[in-house]
Amino acid sequence: MRQALPIIQMTTAPGQLDLAWGHPAPELLPVTALQRAGAAALATFGPDMLQYGYANGPGPLVTYLLDRIAAHEGRRPAPEELLVTSGISLGLELVLRRITRPGDVVLVESPTYHLALRIMRDQGLTLVPVPADAGGLRLDALAEAITTQERAGRPARALYLVPTFSNPTGRSLAANRRAALVALAQAAGLLILEDDVYRELAYDAPAPPSLWSLAPAGGVARLGAFSKSLAPGLRLGWLTAPPDLIRPLADGGLLDSGGGLNHFTALVVAALCAAGDYDRNVANVRAAYRHRRDTLLAALREHLPAGCRLETPRGGFFVWVELPEGADSATLLPAAEAEGVAYLPGPRFHLDGGGRQALRLAFSYYPADQLAEAARRLGRALRATV
Amino acid sequence: MRQALPIIQMTTAPGQLDLAWGHPAPELLPVTALQRAGAAALATFGPDMLQYGYANGPGPLVTYLLDRIAAHEGRRPAPEELLVTSGISLGLELVLRRITRPGDVVLVESPTYHLALRIMRDQGLTLVPVPADAGGLRLDALAEAITTQERAGRPARALYLVPTFSNPTGRSLAANRRAALVALAQAAGLLILEDDVYRELAYDAPAPPSLWSLAPAGGVARLGAFSKSLAPGLRLGWLTAPPDLIRPLADGGLLDSGGGLNHFTALVVAALCAAGDYDRNVANVRAAYRHRRDTLLAALREHLPAGCRLETPRGGFFVWVELPEGADSATLLPAAEAEGVAYLPGPRFHLDGGGRQALRLAFSYYPADQLAEAARRLGRALRATV
Repeated sequence: MRQALPIIQMTTAPGQLDLAWGHPAPELLPVTALQRAGAAALATFGPDMLQYGYANGPGPLVTYLLDRIAAHEGRRPAPEELLVTSGISLGLELVLRRITRPGDVVLVESPTYHLALRIMRDQGLTLVPVPADAGGLRLDALAEAITTQERAGRPARALYLVPTFSNPTGRSLAANRRAALVALAQAAGLLILEDDVYRELAYDAPAPPSLWSLAPAGGVARLGAFSKSLAPGLRLGWLTAPPDLIRPLADGGLLDSGGGLNHFTALVVAALCAAGDYDRNVANVRAAYRHRRDTLLAALREHLPAGCRLETPRGGFFVWVELPEGADSATLLPAAEAEGVAYLPGPRFHLDGGGRQALRLAFSYYPADQLAEAARRLGRALRATV
Repeated sequence: MRQALPIIQMTTAPGQLDLAWGHPAPELLPVTALQRAGAAALATFGPDMLQYGYANGPGPLVTYLLDRIAAHEGRRPAPEELLVTSGISLGLELVLRRITRPGDVVLVESPTYHLALRIMRDQGLTLVPVPADAGGLRLDALAEAITTQERAGRPARALYLVPTFSNPTGRSLAANRRAALVALAQAAGLLILEDDVYRELAYDAPAPPSLWSLAPAGGVARLGAFSKSLAPGLRLGWLTAPPDLIRPLADGGLLDSGGGLNHFTALVVAALCAAGDYDRNVANVRAAYRHRRDTLLAALREHLPAGCRLETPRGGFFVWVELPEGADSATLLPAAEAEGVAYLPGPRFHLDGGGRQALRLAFSYYPADQLAEAARRLGRALRATV
């Protein structure tokens, strides 16, 4: 008798509170809204939902996104500036394949999303870290990296960053650095790859303007998605970028052959949005994740030993904890797991072995009481070892 | 007031019967079965349907595919030999990106699927045509191409072909060439990219064995999909290939970051399959397309001028018409369009300008009476011009 094969990606060891996973809470995933939307979409669109889809994405979802972006970001993309994607990971891969060759140099904020680093490495790209501080990416360091690469005859093609509610730090690029970053990148002919997946998850104030909204003259490819604001299993996102980047993707062989990247799901989500369930869901998860964040922060401040530092993330899924001088998050992990709690050590988000003194905790998956318990366990492990 | 943006890819000029499009018939797309399946899947799988999916594809669909392949092809893939994809086009692109670099040489059957040629060209690959005859790919020509490339110091990395109910010719690789092709490719270290999208659409007899099923020792990446047997808008397919090709895709950054390629839709289709609706749909479309094929063939034999040659395709979507000596399908197209019928000229499926005397007609989209009318119009156009 064969063992059943897994359905989902996440696995956790029994007894562990594994805060390494930046996955949404199962109980917050909108199963009922999608049941309504699936039925409504098939009733509304019929066979059009099952046919080869329009390359840029089906009109009803594209129009919803254009309107929503206009309302929230003060800049309405032209239809030729938007492409519906099957998630940010593939969108990032398709854009990079369009603008780079193996061996090309891409600058990356450091620390940054560790799996984006893997996607870029898998494409044979040479990644050069650019340090961030409490205000996000350091523009002086960026200017220096650009110059260094130009002098070395290997000009950087692109810059990848998560400027809003960053993974892993939860920090956002300071407001006064945003327009300056856009100008700096444009002057250097550097395409900014803006991973904007956490935009909707703003807990204390509206999210800062996207880099894309500040770059009407081009230079920014902004990757958005429904993964955190609705459901990651949908594999649905969008790209807003200059027409000269969108067009070759929309007109290329891949979409000419297969049609739009995720047509069926895009129309299910279009129906969900039209019913008002997207706005309702965003409000719902925002409130729920805000409570989880506050609960985890309070418990961490209570239980972590002196010398640990943490900030309040204003959005997203993560708390970044800095340990006392000399502590090493990687070597501490077994002690934490022995207490029944896990995290991702800081070096996972660095290219240069940095971040040994830091660790990332996700507050997205577990309910508040379990987050508080996780903080207690982490406190016990750290007090015993640092 | 803005004009509504398109939902689907296909566009046709008013009054035209456009047999250039190899798209399924809207009235044959299983809207009702998908309504049932969507509701059943969300009820059965709940939040697991919306979470990050397992990299190789969700267990319920993977298990269904393993069982179906075992039952129909006499060889059961191991779970690590199968990856659920978001369609053949992306599957082809991901495999090629894994095994090639820009500038590498890939051999392609000639004539072959014109948009696969675009996908491969977009990746900067050098494509070398290998001629086919009535029995499909010519093995003598393949052996010669392999040797020529090796002698030139640019060994071919892969061979792309549609060996079963080919697009554009409707022909299948002869039974006695299949094992020999596998052996020849293995000896040359050439990965066979088997585009198997028409397998289920067999009208007169079971489809010949897949090249993958004849290659237990490896050497074949078989790309399957639900696009023709269920619905292309789902963007759902599968790859059966050696573990050493599947593993780096499943473990790579793209799927580690995003989870399975089309998780939500994969579970909708798993529920549809479990309900028996996939088998019912395959039987239904097989009968419907067989009737369309027979109607178009009879009308073509009645109306096409002497000197036109065509064969009966045993499956798939297409009839390949060879025109009388000296006729040119590209220059004839305007005359056909003036009569209200369109097709794809043969050269579109060749890399070397060949096929000028041939054209491809799709019998998938239009009902029988319109196919008969299309044949009458084509006959008028050809009689007036050839």
